This record gives sequence, structure tokens and C-alpha cells, in this order.
Amino acid sequence: MAAVAAATRWRLLLVLSAAGLGATGAPQPPNILLLLMDDMGWGDLGVYGEPSRETPNLDRMAAEGMLFPNFYTANPLCSPSRAALLTGRLPIRSGFYTTNGHARNAYTPQEIVGGIPDSELLLPELLKEAGYTSKIVGKWHLGHRPQFHPLKHGFDEWFGSPNCHFGPYDNKARPNIPVYRDWEMVGRFYEEFPINLKTGEANLTQIYLQEALDFIKRQQAARRPFFLHWAIDATHAPVYASRPFLGTSQRGRYGDAVREIDDSVGKILHLLRDLSIAENTFVFFTSDNGAALISAPRQGSNGPFLCGKQTTFEGGMREPAIAWWPGHIPAGQVSHQLGSIMDLFTTSLSLAGLEPPRDRAIDGLDLLPTMLQGRLTDRPVFYYRGNTLMAVTRGQYKAHFWTWTNSWEEFRQGVDFCPGQNVSGVTTHSQEEHTKLPLVFHLGRDPGERFPLSIASTEYLDALRQITPVVRQHQEALVPGQPQLNVCNRAVMSWAPPGCEKLGKCLMPPESVPEKCSWPH
Amino acid sequence: MAAVAAATRWRLLLVLSAAGLGATGAPQPPNILLLLMDDMGWGDLGVYGEPSRETPNLDRMAAEGMLFPNFYTANPLCSPSRAALLTGRLPIRSGFYTTNGHARNAYTPQEIVGGIPDSELLLPELLKEAGYTSKIVGKWHLGHRPQFHPLKHGFDEWFGSPNCHFGPYDNKARPNIPVYRDWEMVGRFYEEFPINLKTGEANLTQIYLQEALDFIKRQQAARRPFFLHWAIDATHAPVYASRPFLGTSQRGRYGDAVREIDDSVGKILHLLRDLSIAENTFVFFTSDNGAALISAPRQGSNGPFLCGKQTTFEGGMREPAIAWWPGHIPAGQVSHQLGSIMDLFTTSLSLAGLEPPRDRAIDGLDLLPTMLQGRLTDRPVFYYRGNTLMAVTRGQYKAHFWTWTNSWEEFRQGVDFCPGQNVSGVTTHSQEEHTKLPLVFHLGRDPGERFPLSIASTEYLDALRQITPVVRQHQEALVPGQPQLNVCNRAVMSWAPPGCEKLGKCLMPPESVPEKCSWPH
Repeated sequence: MAAVAAATRWRLLLVLSAAGLGATGAPQPPNILLLLMDDMGWGDLGVYGEPSRETPNLDRMAAEGMLFPNFYTANPLCSPSRAALLTGRLPIRSGFYTTNGHARNAYTPQEIVGGIPDSELLLPELLKEAGYTSKIVGKWHLGHRPQFHPLKHGFDEWFGSPNCHFGPYDNKARPNIPVYRDWEMVGRFYEEFPINLKTGEANLTQIYLQEALDFIKRQQAARRPFFLHWAIDATHAPVYASRPFLGTSQRGRYGDAVREIDDSVGKILHLLRDLSIAENTFVFFTSDNGAALISAPRQGSNGPFLCGKQTTFEGGMREPAIAWWPGHIPAGQVSHQLGSIMDLFTTSLSLAGLEPPRDRAIDGLDLLPTMLQGRLTDRPVFYYRGNTLMAVTRGQYKAHFWTWTNSWEEFRQGVDFCPGQNVSGVTTHSQEEHTKLPLVFHLGRDPGERFPLSIASTEYLDALRQITPVVRQHQEALVPGQPQLNVCNRAVMSWAPPGCEKLGKCLMPPESVPEKCSWPH
Repeated sequence: MAAVAAATRWRLLLVLSAAGLGATGAPQPPNILLLLMDDMGWGDLGVYGEPSRETPNLDRMAAEGMLFPNFYTANPLCSPSRAALLTGRLPIRSGFYTTNGHARNAYTPQEIVGGIPDSELLLPELLKEAGYTSKIVGKWHLGHRPQFHPLKHGFDEWFGSPNCHFGPYDNKARPNIPVYRDWEMVGRFYEEFPINLKTGEANLTQIYLQEALDFIKRQQAARRPFFLHWAIDATHAPVYASRPFLGTSQRGRYGDAVREIDDSVGKILHLLRDLSIAENTFVFFTSDNGAALISAPRQGSNGPFLCGKQTTFEGGMREPAIAWWPGHIPAGQVSHQLGSIMDLFTTSLSLAGLEPPRDRAIDGLDLLPTMLQGRLTDRPVFYYRGNTLMAVTRGQYKAHFWTWTNSWEEFRQGVDFCPGQNVSGVTTHSQEEHTKLPLVFHLGRDPGERFPLSIASTEYLDALRQITPVVRQHQEALVPGQPQLNVCNRAVMSWAPPGCEKLGKCLMPPESVPEKCSWPH
């Protein structure tokens, strides 16, 4: 209640200030800290039922804040979901999808030509209006060519990489991924920033932690509101941890990475308390997509949900989510609001006393009324692969219009996005169309999506009666953005990023050969 | 620490008292309250990650006490696991198994001839030595013929039924199950104790709650230590709830039942606090086996674990477990002790200052050092079906010597104990022997038992090196009890239980025809 009033007051002050009537000593809007995990699943935290219970800091964060059991990402893959977080818009709107095949996932590998369009308004750009200084630590993943650089899209600082930390590469067929500090590269993964694939040792989480702590301290000292986007990637394959954490988990290397992250989150929250800015810092923890059950079969947990990353079953898109803002969000709450990663855009604007842009469709809701007053807002969740609407959830009912895990061809080669979870007619290996008679699940009774409602039941008809108009309205109003993830070209890889001369690390790009990217699933 | 010292003191006082040296005003040993659920799964509580989070009272109980994520029942079926709780012994020792087929589950249906042997020492019999008054509320399930009556095995009071609440029956081919108060029947299910199969309405949980509250108040007034075994069955098919709870859960009727149970547990703990005996009452919550995924496909959750009731995968035998003893067990603890339902026997004796019997093998450990001092004790978990040792867990490693869910014949008819969880070579429909080369899983990295260790790995060999001697020792020392669950006879059903005359409800038994019981899985 108090915070809503405060937000209104900041808005008022901003209006007054724009009119030259600003008062000095105006209250500072809250800092915003978005902790975004990579391929971490709903079931990976103790508070979500992970049996080893190795996340005491995150569990405490939940106990001191609000837990969202029904929180969703906007896409079962990294780049599109990150674009959605920072734009508040479905990837289909911002262009973060491919049309190279039907219902295909796509992201920003090294050879991608596209990235975040200039026409998109990103959260840090907008927060500038309210005086925020913004930093992204970790993975950007919205395009690595110069025009897509995060400092061209509103961030003031960056420490991290434009792409995943796959490798090592030979710097001939393909370069190792650069690590940037602000405008320039300061090294490459597997070179200046080692990752030992055999032992799983890498210091990256510690480096990312220090970057976060340092940024927070500097902004606090300067008394500037800040937005910190801590987008770390230790739980993304190849999974890593620093030496003190290796071998300490009951869950293997993935658990080591989770333990180091948990420890780091604990240190960040501790610093906020130490600096006495905890009550003026909104912190949100979530992940970009479900645990990747395939790339590391024993790694990551999507709890009781079906399948994982790459799929539009709950395991691919339901995420852990914790909001923490001592003195504002009451402790120990659980909210059943259907939340979305896109809500972090709108909610952050609201915290800063800003309105979302009115010239475009925004999918994110302002969650402040949910978090501060317990309000529940009915809203649908859309599950896309590429430009295909695979499923929609409304309330407890989820209707699948298409089902697919991956192709028989991939599956026969051992690629399985749902290992040990074969649900006949649901986890299909051909793309099955159900647009006329959707497969409908009740997610409360059947969170694992195992028992479709009978199409002869009145419950089925009632559920469709709720969902069908929502889908029609969505599809009629939808203006897809220019697809960014169709064209690949080895020449655009990070051969010679800015700063490479100083390091003597510029590489020769090959001849430019644009081609359609191959998106097998 | 303090409690251990106290327990030692009671022991001393008992010795002194036996020697005629007892002091008056000796401290009363703690009351013992065992809350045993029926077919409730590991994943059914919010604190274990159930997404709907509808168990605030149980979650609070965990927050005020100690949660055991690695707690096991002794059998994936009801009667044997209940026998194990009350005897502290594996069902193979007490005779609660069948030899009618290989690796078959068996229990006590109406036509069973056997039951708990007189030679077994049950917890309430032993607690008498320490002055306890004992009551069982709910399902007994250790045999319904006169010699097996709970009041012949140490309980002082009983309100409940000898068998499951299946029905309604016609009282001709088979009688409805009687409900007893102490020695005599006071009615039958579907008659004096209605259960509406269509609506799911039944008042039984409310009746069982009142029985518990009344017993606690009476014992407290009489200043006698008590043992209350609250063995309720609303989550066992046919699942029921009372009218105020019907339709209130996001999880359907099963969730309604869980919500009513959660509410009831809250009322029981509240009464203990109101009577100021919370600090002198040890309360433990657990379940008899995993959620029954087959008998009610949308009901119950075993969280991230494989399969459910009837199977020796984790979903069949890993149970929710919470210990609560304010002022003694520190709040907010999680213990990774491998616990067992049989430990409740030994732990309860320890609370009463008693030693377990020395003339027989006892499988239960005293968990007080775990609960009061955080001590972890290495111990194996044995997973039996009938007299076949299917699997053994030691530390994080679980070795399966046999795998089986159910027969192809049953499976083809739609009986599936692992719906949506087909793991090739693991959830087998023929009985697969792996005694020479066990299937080994690391339960920390792979709680869902989906990725067997490679038999070529050193980890596999190391795991077997730990498990093999434990199994050999167990099997060499094992003296199986006389199997109680082999013979069935329709004449032994509850046609004319004591008290039936007063009610005019005596039925005519058919001719006695003993036959081998049929145990299909």
C-alpha cells in the first residue's frame, strides 16, 4: 500500500520535474535487481521441493518475500525469453523468432545475423527517464553485432558475453566467445576466462558476483537509483563452478553451480542489508527457461512438470520466481498469480514511476498490486515455438494446439527433451495439430500434463469456451515483428570485436555467406 | 541435548521404580502422536513443492520442526508398512508378505485369513511399561479377525475400521466394512458412516479429528502420557472430504481431502499449544506409501520421483515426513538422514525411556540423536515386494536387483503404476532380474531414477562395493516370519463383528473355503 502510494508520488514528482517544478530532496525510486538464471528449472530450489535442499539463501529469500509457483517465461529458449524480459513483449512481436521451419525454436548463436531491433524499447532505455543507471552482468544474448551491443540499448555498463559459453573453439573455424567490459572485449572464454570442461572449474560466477557487488556499492555511494540485470549462466551447459564449490553438492556438478549461485545471491542480499538499502531495492529471481534435460541428462529439475527446455510443456516454461522487497512485500507469501517474465518489464517501470510505452503492444502486467496488495489478475499465458502458438493457459486450463518435442530423426539419435516422461499422444515426435480439438489439461489436478480432459466432458467445453476467444483476440491483434533469427553467416561471428587490437586478439573473418539458419527443433 | 538427558533420566527413574526406589513427582515422558497418512505422496505438501501450496498448517509444522526429504516407508503397500511402523521390523520379519507369487504385493483385504502374529511386540504394548495410554484412530489394517484386534495388541482405545473403506457392498456377496469403537462395531461404511462416491462427501476426517482432540484432552486432564496413532484415510481411494472442504482445492477432490487433513493437523497442534503440552508432545507426520497413481490417475503427487504406490521406485516408498516437538527439535531444520517408518517404533520407545526388544531383529533406528543433535547415521534402505528384495539404497546410491511395475496383461488393460513415466529398461512390465549386475542410480543427481550408472564406470563399481556386503549381511541374517498374506477365505469377512447383535447388523457368513489369495502385482 505504502509503496503504491510512493510510486504515485514519484510519478507526480517526475511530472512536476518535467514542468520545471521539481522539489529537491525527492524520494529516490527503488533500485531494481533482476537475477536471471540460465536453464535453471522450477524444481531446482529447495523451496520448490528439490530433495537435496541446497539453496538456503534462496529459500530464505522466499521466506522473506513472495513465491510465485505459477510463473512463466515467454519462450522455452534463452534469447527470445531474454528479449521478452527486456521489452515486455512476446518474442513474436519483437522479432525474436524464426520462420525457417514450422514451430522451430531459435536463438542467437555466433553466426546469427539478427538481434534486438533498434525499434524495440528496452527496460534500461526507459528507466533512464527516471534517473536510473543500468548494468548488465553476464549473458546478453540479444545479438552480438555492433548495432546490438547492450550499451546501444540503454545499459550504461556491461560485464559479460554476448553468446553462450560453448567451446573451446580453435579461433580458426570459429572464434571463442568474447567477454566484454562495457564497449570493448577484455578476453575470450577458454582463454583469459578459462572454463575447464573436464573438472567443471571456472571462476565466472565469482567474477559476476564481484561485478554485482561493486556496481551496487558504487551506485549506493553516488546515491543514484540503479537497475542491475544479473544474467549469469553457470547452470547452462557446460555447467561450471569455482573450486570451493566443486564436489560439494549432493546433485553433482549442476548442484555445485546451483550452490555457488545460491551463495552469491545470499551475498548480494546481505550487501543490500549492510548498505541499508534493502528496503529500497526490489529484487526478483527467475530463470530464462526450464532445465535442459537433454544437454545434460542428470542436470536440473523441472519438479513435477513435463519435459524441459525447448518444449512448450510446463517443464519448458514454468519457472522458479521469488520477489523480495523487505518492508514492502510482506514476508512468507505465496501468490498464485499467473506471472510472466514480461511482467518484470512493466513492474520495473511501475517501480520507477513510469508508464509502459503506449505506441506498441505490451504483454507484461504490473505485478505491484499482486505483490503489495495480494490482487490476482486473470490473464492468459501464450506458449510459442517460433511463430507457432503451441498452447495457451487461462486459469487452471491449458490447451495445446500443437504438440511436439523433437523429430523422430533426432529422437532416434538420442536427443530426448522429455527423458523418462513419455506421455502417449502428448510428448509427440511428429508435430501434431490439435487446433480443432485442443488437448486440454487442468494444471491444478494434473500439473504433469498426463491426463487430457475428455473431449466429451462439459468441463472440456467450458474450458475451451474460456480459451477460444482469448486466442482469437490475440491472433487477430497480433502484428509479428520482422523475424530476426532466420539468417546466419559465419562472417558475422566475433572474429574481431572492439578492443581486440589492444589485446592482439583480432581474428580474420571468412568470406560473407549469408544462409538460412538451420533450426532442427 | 536437554531431551536426551531427560530421556536418560526417565530410563533411570524406570529402573529405580522397578527396583522400588521410584521418586514421586517424576517427570512425565513426552506424549507421542504419530500422524499416518494413507497413499499420500512425497509431493503432496507445499513444503515439498506441490505447486498449489494448499497445506499451510503442515508447511508451518515443518517450519517449526524438522523436515526429512529422505524418509522411507517399509513397503509400497498399506498393511505391510503399517505393521512395520508398529513393530519396528521389516514386513518380511513380521510375516506381512505373501509367497503366492514372485515379488507380489499383498495386504489385508476383507477375505484375508492372516494378520499381526501374537509373537510380534507392538509399540503400544511396549509403551504400557512406561505408563502410556494408547489409542488408534482410523485404519488398523493388520488383520480383522478377533485375534488381531488392536486392543489385543496393546491399544487401549480404537475408533476406526479394520480395512479400507472400499464399497458400497451389498452385505450379501460381501459385507460393508465395520467401524469399531474399542471392542465393538458401531456401524458400517456406507451405512451408519456414509461415503458418497458421486460427490466425494464423507464426514470421516471430522469424526477422526474429534476422536483425536477428545483423546488428547482426556489424557491431559488425567495427566497420563499418551500415544495417539492417527491413521486416517481420506486420501485413499475412494477419496473423500466433508462438505466445507469439497470443491475448495485447486487440485480436485484429492486436494480437498488434503486440505481437510491439513486443517485438522492444524487444529490438533493448536490444541496441544492451548493445553500447554506442545513442548511435551512429540508429533511425527508421514504416510504409509507413495501416492496411488493408478487407482486415481489425477490424484496425489510423488513430486520428482518415479512411479508410485505398488512399486519399489522412489515414488512408491519415499514419503513426506515432519518431526515437531517445540522446545526440543530446533525449528526450521532439514535432515538428510535416511529415515524409515520403522524408526518411529524405536524413536518412540526412546522417548518413553525404553529400549527396543533384544530378542528379535529390529530395523528401526532411534532418530532422537538426529532430531536433537543433528547426527547422521549411515544405514541402508531395503525395498521389498513380497519376500523379494527388489532394491537397496545406501547413501546416495540405489541398486535395483529386480525391476517390475506390473504385468503386461494388467498394463494392456490400462493398469499403469507409472503413468507418463516410461523409462526404458527401468519401469519394466516383465520381472527383470538384475541380481548379477544391478541397475544403480545416484539419487542426488537423478532422483527420478532415469539414468542408470554405466556398469563400466568406477563409480558403479564403488557403489556396488558399498552395497553388496550390506545386502549379503542382511540376507544371511534374515529369518522371514510365517507369511500371513497367503490364504484368503470369504467366510472370515466381517459378517458378524462383536457388537453386531446390539445394532441388529449381524450377517450370515458363507461356507468356509480357504484358498490362495490372488496377488496380481
